[in-house]
Amino acid sequence: MSASGFAMNIAGDHAQVVLISVFVAVLCLCLVIGHLLEENRWLNESTTAIIIGCITGTIILLLSKGKSSHILRFNEELFFIYLLPPIIFNAGFQVKKKQFFQNFITIMLFGVIGVFISSSIITAGAWWLFPRFGFTGLSAQDYLAIGTIFSSTDTVCTLQVLHQDETPLLYSLVFGEGVVNDATSVVLFNAVQKLDKSKLNGWAALRVLLDSLYLFSTSTALGVVAGLLTAYTLKTLYIGRHSTVREIALMVLMAYLSYTLAELFHLSGILTVFFCGILMSHYASHNVTQSSRITTRHVQTHYMHIFATMSFIAETFIFLYVGIDALDIEKWKLSKLSFRTSVGIYSTVVLLISLGRAAFVFPLSTFSNYVHRRADRLSSISFKHQVIIWWAGLMRGAVSIALAFKQFTYSGVTLDPANATMVTTTIIVVLFTTLVFGFLTKPLISFLQPHHTNNNTSHGEPRSPKEDLSLPLLSLEESAETNILRAKESLSMLIERPVYTIHNYWRKFDDTYMRPVFGGPCRDQSAC
Amino acid sequence: MSASGFAMNIAGDHAQVVLISVFVAVLCLCLVIGHLLEENRWLNESTTAIIIGCITGTIILLLSKGKSSHILRFNEELFFIYLLPPIIFNAGFQVKKKQFFQNFITIMLFGVIGVFISSSIITAGAWWLFPRFGFTGLSAQDYLAIGTIFSSTDTVCTLQVLHQDETPLLYSLVFGEGVVNDATSVVLFNAVQKLDKSKLNGWAALRVLLDSLYLFSTSTALGVVAGLLTAYTLKTLYIGRHSTVREIALMVLMAYLSYTLAELFHLSGILTVFFCGILMSHYASHNVTQSSRITTRHVQTHYMHIFATMSFIAETFIFLYVGIDALDIEKWKLSKLSFRTSVGIYSTVVLLISLGRAAFVFPLSTFSNYVHRRADRLSSISFKHQVIIWWAGLMRGAVSIALAFKQFTYSGVTLDPANATMVTTTIIVVLFTTLVFGFLTKPLISFLQPHHTNNNTSHGEPRSPKEDLSLPLLSLEESAETNILRAKESLSMLIERPVYTIHNYWRKFDDTYMRPVFGGPCRDQSAC
Repeated sequence: MSASGFAMNIAGDHAQVVLISVFVAVLCLCLVIGHLLEENRWLNESTTAIIIGCITGTIILLLSKGKSSHILRFNEELFFIYLLPPIIFNAGFQVKKKQFFQNFITIMLFGVIGVFISSSIITAGAWWLFPRFGFTGLSAQDYLAIGTIFSSTDTVCTLQVLHQDETPLLYSLVFGEGVVNDATSVVLFNAVQKLDKSKLNGWAALRVLLDSLYLFSTSTALGVVAGLLTAYTLKTLYIGRHSTVREIALMVLMAYLSYTLAELFHLSGILTVFFCGILMSHYASHNVTQSSRITTRHVQTHYMHIFATMSFIAETFIFLYVGIDALDIEKWKLSKLSFRTSVGIYSTVVLLISLGRAAFVFPLSTFSNYVHRRADRLSSISFKHQVIIWWAGLMRGAVSIALAFKQFTYSGVTLDPANATMVTTTIIVVLFTTLVFGFLTKPLISFLQPHHTNNNTSHGEPRSPKEDLSLPLLSLEESAETNILRAKESLSMLIERPVYTIHNYWRKFDDTYMRPVFGGPCRDQSAC
Repeated sequence: MSASGFAMNIAGDHAQVVLISVFVAVLCLCLVIGHLLEENRWLNESTTAIIIGCITGTIILLLSKGKSSHILRFNEELFFIYLLPPIIFNAGFQVKKKQFFQNFITIMLFGVIGVFISSSIITAGAWWLFPRFGFTGLSAQDYLAIGTIFSSTDTVCTLQVLHQDETPLLYSLVFGEGVVNDATSVVLFNAVQKLDKSKLNGWAALRVLLDSLYLFSTSTALGVVAGLLTAYTLKTLYIGRHSTVREIALMVLMAYLSYTLAELFHLSGILTVFFCGILMSHYASHNVTQSSRITTRHVQTHYMHIFATMSFIAETFIFLYVGIDALDIEKWKLSKLSFRTSVGIYSTVVLLISLGRAAFVFPLSTFSNYVHRRADRLSSISFKHQVIIWWAGLMRGAVSIALAFKQFTYSGVTLDPANATMVTTTIIVVLFTTLVFGFLTKPLISFLQPHHTNNNTSHGEPRSPKEDLSLPLLSLEESAETNILRAKESLSMLIERPVYTIHNYWRKFDDTYMRPVFGGPCRDQSAC
């Protein structure tokens, strides 16, 4: 899939085949080693892939006697056009919609306001501290870009540590924040790149905020439209017939089309394809089952595996790539700082990342708890959870690297020492946070959240995880139960538990107007 | 997946996204239109895709006012490295192994000897006839290459017309021949390209034959080893655990690795990945089921859908691409022949293709019937079948175009009028055979083979098609039945029905030695 762009860097047919073979072989190795280390307390798949990538990079470097640096240059186009879409689409397809929308306000607080706070702090801190280490040569725009580059968390790595079934609230918060956060960072980064350098004032900041809101709404709308269109097409065309292959192909291609269209109109493809995934798993994937002899659950699992496989290969590929790219000797030569200055800059950035994240996780959690105060205790975020959320978002990943390359290089090449330093700093920070914080995440979570307390944090009635996977927004049983309980207090509830009530109205609307048109499983079986 | 290489032809980030969007949108359109036309008597998916491709090409040409020819240049690397492997792997994974191996001798006769006969006739005919139209400028090597280029049939298109369940013997013959034939053409083509031009004699021909045999055996061995290695890894590592995503990823990557390794050692990647697919569906895919709660059939269907989807997208992509590429104005300008000469050359080639195919289908079918004369009537190929086999292999496809580009252009560009003519001739022949012969195939088959006679041609006992999909080489029931019937006459059978007997021995070997090591479903359930 993705080796193509990477292969294009190399001249010659045979050399290309050699490199693809090596890369695929190392990928296979990653899978097997990742599996063997699955029960390991410290390592996870991402860290394994990065370490294997570093080792491969070292071997290539040694074999080519220090000359191979150009072969495996990080290609941010490859990343944004081919690797990111399947990961985010899969995320949207797999997300537990119920919990995601129940925590929607908190997630948006973290993902949007949080990124603004975090990037302001990182920008200000870098502006203030970098010159003190004797590191100059960056423009005001560069500092703003640094803020957004180091504000995008790495969801992939975190999600391999948290489990949807064990800690559903934490998972949905961290996961949801990760997706929205990725989108915000990219949006903010693009806004910074377009910024008129002469007019850096309050008006410009407001404009960026308004731009972001506009992008959020239009990107989401595009994703929703693409998802609904696919669902409608599948429902209209395939009724009574069964051709799974064509349907899966259509879903994959339509999702990809929504991503490229969003990029085409300079929207956030990440948000678009994420909502497209949510809509598809809600409507489109259920349309197939009507004509199939396989049960709903099987088809759902079926789709999930296909999309999860694409996503899994892309993720492993990215981490491997980051690992190999870190050994690219060229950029290290260009950065002309002393060892002490470099270490100073690296630690400054890591410190600023931690500070910037703490500055929004704890206040916003408190705010969220205040908003949810009348609701049940279960929605509130305990201090321990806040620490885990803070920690889980400290890792930086491929999005940071891709943005850094976009800002500080011209298609992978830079000749300016200051720019080269920023690229190497990003790589070091990504390696450090992924490896060190990644190593410590599992122990930290099991320290703060021992297994026997898990049920305290789970939402609603306990339910078999397998069953939950194929659930629509709310399950049938719960729907009946809650309807009886809440029917008489609908108005007072609207004040006390706004999210639940909105959910209730949405469900009625969904059942009455949406599902008859776009398909999906019937909650009320007599209506089918 | 594959748009990357194609996108690399274009400068600029935004233009690339535009083109990918257009291409993906047209692909979606192909899927939907292909579905709507499914019941159509004349059209099939390939012809639809080619027609839509031509229309898209025309629109692009008009929009860019005749200047866009460089954007969509056919890239044979993209084809051989990214599009062909999933198609052939899927073919190996889906092939009905029982029928494939029962007809193994006939398939190899058609696929190997047939290509030699066909390419000799086409080479000789072109050598004799082309100068009579006033078309000169080709070397001896070019003529040899023309023979192999026009000897590779297009399996994809044919298989959309024939059905595995309706006409199993025909399907397995045409399908098997298609795969072996692709491999032989590529092998022969590479042999011709390496040929020392000064020494074109009988010894060189013998060398090509020996080279082919060597390549056949080593490629097959590599595929078998890769498949067994994957099966062994999956069985050893994943026993008692269940991680479908990682397993599917490992299978896909290992299959792809076997392909690139084969290409690396200048073997036939097509054969390698085909046998890798067969081995994986025989052993590896069954290993997952042991630990899974889903039944064997579901997992098998599951895998099939994943691989079939990859293959389906790649196929549609290829035909669309061929259609768009045909409208590339540049090469048409270069070819300086008069309209009359051009039409003469096109019809000569089509005539030679038909002659070359007739020259081996009818004699080799008779020979095969003679060999199978003592076996049951079911294995014999009736004259009607021979006509269908002859006709079904007349279509030429993407392999021909890719080979023509490899021979007559230098990475897609040629300045020699004779070479340009050969490229345009290949495109015209592919379009003509796919469209015209493709249109007529469905009517021809239903004329020669009305539906009520289908069962006459089916092998063995009637069986539900769904069930057959997940069968190992021979089913459990049949195994018991045949064992009783044949136990006492084993030696006489070895003479009279060699294929069945070899099959029997293979099954015993498989059960005793192979399955315990590499996994797969138990035939004898007590032994599990």
